[in-house]
Amino acid sequence: MQYPYQDAALTIRERVTDLLSRMSTQEKIGQVNQHLYGWETFEDSQSLTFTEKFKAHVEWGGGVGALYGLFRADPWSKVNFENGVRAQDSWRVANKVQEYVMAHSRWGIPALIVEECPHGHQGLEGISYPTNIGRGNMFNTRLMQQSSHLMAQELALKGVNLALVSTLDLVKDPRWGRSEECFGEDPILAARMSEAVVAGFQGDLIQSDVAFLDQPAKPQTTDAISVVLKHCIAQGEALGGHNSGTVTIGQREFSDVYEPLLSSVKNAAGVMAAYNDVDGVPCHINQPLLTQDLRDVNGFQGIVMADGVALDRLSGIFETQPEAAAAALNAGVDLSLWDQTFLTLDQAIENGLVDEAALDNAAGQVLALKFLLGLFEQPYVQAPNVQLTALLGKSDALNLQVARESMTLVKNNGLLPIRNQPQKIAVIGPNADELYNLLGDYTAAQSSARQAQTIYQAIQEMFPESEVVYALGCEVRNSIHQEEAIAKAVELARDADLIIPVLGGSSARNFDMAFLSNGAVSSKGINMDSGENVDVASLSLGGQQEVLLKQLKALGKPIACVMVQGRPYDLTLVNELADAVLIAWFPGQQGGRTIAETLVGLNNPSGKLSVSYPRNTQQLPAYYYQRDAAKQDDYYDEVGQPLYPFGYGLSYDQFDYRQLAVKQMVDKLVVTVKVKNNGQFVGQESSLLFVKLTGGAVIQRTKLLKAFQKNAFQPGEEKSITFELPAADFNYMDIDNQVKRAQAATIMVADLAEKITLSI
Amino acid sequence: MQYPYQDAALTIRERVTDLLSRMSTQEKIGQVNQHLYGWETFEDSQSLTFTEKFKAHVEWGGGVGALYGLFRADPWSKVNFENGVRAQDSWRVANKVQEYVMAHSRWGIPALIVEECPHGHQGLEGISYPTNIGRGNMFNTRLMQQSSHLMAQELALKGVNLALVSTLDLVKDPRWGRSEECFGEDPILAARMSEAVVAGFQGDLIQSDVAFLDQPAKPQTTDAISVVLKHCIAQGEALGGHNSGTVTIGQREFSDVYEPLLSSVKNAAGVMAAYNDVDGVPCHINQPLLTQDLRDVNGFQGIVMADGVALDRLSGIFETQPEAAAAALNAGVDLSLWDQTFLTLDQAIENGLVDEAALDNAAGQVLALKFLLGLFEQPYVQAPNVQLTALLGKSDALNLQVARESMTLVKNNGLLPIRNQPQKIAVIGPNADELYNLLGDYTAAQSSARQAQTIYQAIQEMFPESEVVYALGCEVRNSIHQEEAIAKAVELARDADLIIPVLGGSSARNFDMAFLSNGAVSSKGINMDSGENVDVASLSLGGQQEVLLKQLKALGKPIACVMVQGRPYDLTLVNELADAVLIAWFPGQQGGRTIAETLVGLNNPSGKLSVSYPRNTQQLPAYYYQRDAAKQDDYYDEVGQPLYPFGYGLSYDQFDYRQLAVKQMVDKLVVTVKVKNNGQFVGQESSLLFVKLTGGAVIQRTKLLKAFQKNAFQPGEEKSITFELPAADFNYMDIDNQVKRAQAATIMVADLAEKITLSI
Repeated sequence: MQYPYQDAALTIRERVTDLLSRMSTQEKIGQVNQHLYGWETFEDSQSLTFTEKFKAHVEWGGGVGALYGLFRADPWSKVNFENGVRAQDSWRVANKVQEYVMAHSRWGIPALIVEECPHGHQGLEGISYPTNIGRGNMFNTRLMQQSSHLMAQELALKGVNLALVSTLDLVKDPRWGRSEECFGEDPILAARMSEAVVAGFQGDLIQSDVAFLDQPAKPQTTDAISVVLKHCIAQGEALGGHNSGTVTIGQREFSDVYEPLLSSVKNAAGVMAAYNDVDGVPCHINQPLLTQDLRDVNGFQGIVMADGVALDRLSGIFETQPEAAAAALNAGVDLSLWDQTFLTLDQAIENGLVDEAALDNAAGQVLALKFLLGLFEQPYVQAPNVQLTALLGKSDALNLQVARESMTLVKNNGLLPIRNQPQKIAVIGPNADELYNLLGDYTAAQSSARQAQTIYQAIQEMFPESEVVYALGCEVRNSIHQEEAIAKAVELARDADLIIPVLGGSSARNFDMAFLSNGAVSSKGINMDSGENVDVASLSLGGQQEVLLKQLKALGKPIACVMVQGRPYDLTLVNELADAVLIAWFPGQQGGRTIAETLVGLNNPSGKLSVSYPRNTQQLPAYYYQRDAAKQDDYYDEVGQPLYPFGYGLSYDQFDYRQLAVKQMVDKLVVTVKVKNNGQFVGQESSLLFVKLTGGAVIQRTKLLKAFQKNAFQPGEEKSITFELPAADFNYMDIDNQVKRAQAATIMVADLAEKITLSI
Repeated sequence: MQYPYQDAALTIRERVTDLLSRMSTQEKIGQVNQHLYGWETFEDSQSLTFTEKFKAHVEWGGGVGALYGLFRADPWSKVNFENGVRAQDSWRVANKVQEYVMAHSRWGIPALIVEECPHGHQGLEGISYPTNIGRGNMFNTRLMQQSSHLMAQELALKGVNLALVSTLDLVKDPRWGRSEECFGEDPILAARMSEAVVAGFQGDLIQSDVAFLDQPAKPQTTDAISVVLKHCIAQGEALGGHNSGTVTIGQREFSDVYEPLLSSVKNAAGVMAAYNDVDGVPCHINQPLLTQDLRDVNGFQGIVMADGVALDRLSGIFETQPEAAAAALNAGVDLSLWDQTFLTLDQAIENGLVDEAALDNAAGQVLALKFLLGLFEQPYVQAPNVQLTALLGKSDALNLQVARESMTLVKNNGLLPIRNQPQKIAVIGPNADELYNLLGDYTAAQSSARQAQTIYQAIQEMFPESEVVYALGCEVRNSIHQEEAIAKAVELARDADLIIPVLGGSSARNFDMAFLSNGAVSSKGINMDSGENVDVASLSLGGQQEVLLKQLKALGKPIACVMVQGRPYDLTLVNELADAVLIAWFPGQQGGRTIAETLVGLNNPSGKLSVSYPRNTQQLPAYYYQRDAAKQDDYYDEVGQPLYPFGYGLSYDQFDYRQLAVKQMVDKLVVTVKVKNNGQFVGQESSLLFVKLTGGAVIQRTKLLKAFQKNAFQPGEEKSITFELPAADFNYMDIDNQVKRAQAATIMVADLAEKITLSI
């Protein structure tokens, strides 16, 4: 041990300080840059020869701050099973990178290996879970944490140190193509999910009551990696649902909706700044947000990462890149992503636009994370071998459970669950036999090795005695020349005993598409209608899907419609024509099987909508927690209420609530209620507790979710469930932007409500 | 002269102070209340016997603060030509009221007689001008001021002291039924129009550099009355276009968009608070808005009037009415409207919720206005007789000019102006022969005496040699059983040489409708699809209008489409099928004649769109001055740009611009540009100057209108026009909510642009 920073017994702060004191400005700039696309590291995945680009990158920075996407395998990166790194080889590749980087750093500083993991690792053979918009419907933070933990293990075994995970965005306007990346529209649901993700990925890597800088690093385990939560913040508020559009909301709106989310990140190793502005100020240069609010108010200790090329996009504001770099660094951005801008920090310092102390601070944050992860002591991972295979098997099983709990039944006239073996089942529709259409955006190339089934395949397997037939019916969006396909499907379904239309949208990318420099789609495939940068104006179902459904309906057969989608599409007609409607969202690799299970009752659906499900664009915004203004609710030509309210979802059971009781303690409310399964099946019920505040010189919101829990019930079983609501749940921001306690509140669970005068 | 307050030689402040010192609390409360519906003053318009309700009202307050709607005659008030007060009798009725009120006030305090005048007096035989959304297209503040001055004279001759005029609302979401009451979406256009209204109505009643309280009142003239501008503020921002819905915008958005409007009211005798909240705080209890911003920052000296029953609507916030009354009074509301809440101010004072000083302040404001208007000296008006008749004739002529300049031609493939006398003209459509459909909301019952023509009648008159035929075609909104009417219209048009479809919407109220307590429509007529509380979800043309148009188009004849409407409807199909499209908005009593004149070229259209004309709801928001975020502009299924941009409008001439020059002076920019009429006709051209700011750590807006002027040109004439831009035009609100000067700016006029580094 040559230098103090190498001494694992010292606190991280001491090690960072020592190391920074030895580093050149350029080396520090190297630590705050994450410029390279990781898939450009090697000439090819066989020889594993480093590219000149990579070597120049390492040389430029005297090491590497972070390396993004070494294993990313998708149409944008043009990496697939032909040229990519397989899961079982990843550890070796990661080690080779670390070895090179450390050898070419004067101080032996390892790199952060960073991968996308919005709903599973976006690498070859990664487990692909349901997208967030489906997982939000679970209302199950325990399951979210468990599955996050498995993702962390999967990534850790591959040599990944840091996962990028979407948890902070909200669906405020479902025209937005990234709606699928949101846990829904609700801030508290998203905040609790966000905390579950952090706990699952990181374990106790960072604890909210401990300043990790003032402790020595704990030894690294293969159980946990660090996580950067996306995006900070309010990206879903963009006007018109335009991706990375401008946001106009004010301080009180921000406080009510986004402070819970800012609070939820406090133990995360990092957050990613959002592309958007808030009331004119881009998040990437918003010092009050990134420093005061995040760190000072909410106790966040991690790094702030820029979004992809976001700093370059500041060119509309600043005349030169060094100015933009300085503004971002001063605001609190610690680490870049793909941009050219942060490469000019040397000029920014030289020109006096920013102090070197700010660079020290940012580089120190990045180094601190590396110390915290134990990378200096243990930069390499062991060959995972059998361990990885076992883990992936275990993950498949948990993924199945996640998919099950995401299933949301919104209509059922008794057709489901299917009890008799139908002689002939017609599975019809553009999403019925397309594996990629089940997976959503940010999904890796798939292999048959993961044994994922399409919906058609799974239904075939579920009904071995039945004749199960399939027809495309029509494409997702393409409206031209669909007549033949529709006719063929109708003909096929004519003598079926059950028709299962599988409709919706698709975020499936193809290798022939074009992409922006941040990986967003620029030239869409004709049948890809959601995902990053794929915003729609109309929420109507694409292409000829409604025509197909109407013609199927005319056959007079029972119809169980399955919706595979990343945003709410207009289901008015589907709801009218189908006997049962199951919203599966993008259900992931286990989606096919899960849907088949749900249709027959092997899975009792327990999902509840995490969005207020709008009838169409004309009705937007539809989110339920708007302020309760004395407004005109209905339009001349449309009702004001959404098609299905937030929290709506059917079970094969019937759950009844009684005896809501509210008790005020010194610093909290204790709410109890009895829930009974009056159905025939084992089932799960998410119980949602809403609060409506009263008092104060602001218009309070119609209601706000404050707590939820999910419980399993035997048929006939009754449970008493308890919620604890801290006093802060009854705060609001008053006219002077001061936080005040409401005078009274109405507590609502299911159809029960009690109004109380607050004494806490 | 018994008391100092009666001494016209004293300053208004001295007289107010003296009078207040003599009044009881109840009398002061009487002065801040405007509870009664004015049409409930008399038993009937023949006997002019005071109702018991009125007498009780006067007794309760020891006088009357203000009396709203003595002459209002419309379906809500149920006043018409059978039971209402005719224009020539109004003076006598007003005098009778004043006499009674003063006689029943211990101090002989006259009432303020208040009338609606959003686009002309909403009383019998009032002149009905185009609604604001059309008048905004004039871009002619001089004409706005002239016509406002005629309205003021008309009202003054009737004994009215105060007019309520909409000038402050903006069309941010055209789903809103009150879009027609807005001058458009642009804050600067609306602010200049607002100032023109104040100057036209009030003359120099209040001057911005003089504290009127510290002067004696000037003698009253019949030239000017006082005006209350509606609504303060941001009402058009309501989420979803829902009437009086919640508004979520932040401080920088507010500052850029609404500060120019708050500044525009500074010489007005009053403003009306808006129903909405801004970021949670209802305008009616927003002290920073109503007192600090309006008075301290913008030098406003007038009264703040509540909107109709708005204070009662605060019941969602306050437990009791006295609490709401106290909050509104403390915030700066000086005068109520129809609510019960302000009647409880005595209890509010008794319970210590508000100081009597606040009541003194509000009552003092109301009394000051009465002194300012000379009402104590000259409470009565003289018999106008011939004077009124002459004025109405003059007003008709100016109204015609206003309607002419509101006409906005958005498509013309050469069909217009019609040069040959067509043998047969078919005028078809629900708005072709309905006078009320031309007038918009807030319109009085009409009499044939005003000689207004329908569009069909006017076209008949314009083409005496032609066969001009008419058919309804279909109704505005009713979709049922329209086939026969459509078929009849098509048959009629089959051998026409020219088809003029007259389509759009309607704000025409009928006497069989139901209304809320604030006069907004509660049960709509089937064919009324705009106006207060008539918000739509879809901007598509109502009923079977598109079907009608398609069938007419199939006849293969030239089509000149006239759109009569109070909001932008989706014109995508109209634009595609028609040879010419003239947007007439709701053009008022002279609308029929104006449209006929425009079709033949007697009026050369000069209107320019004051809204970014959206293709449909799916594309909203469409307003042009959004921040210039690096966003995804187009949707997957729709372009991002509106159908017609803000400022778009064709002439029968062609105007070309050259030699844009920008000169920086000490405290302003002087911009010159040459404009030439390269057409064949005498024409007018509105020249719009936009600015795009650069620099500063906020995302600047795409562009902002900063100045405009309208000039007349002979054929071939070229003029050099000059704009002066004060330095403040280049300010923006920075990240710390500080006002900063931009570093650079691009100046744009028509297709010319020049970027300059600012030295001012």
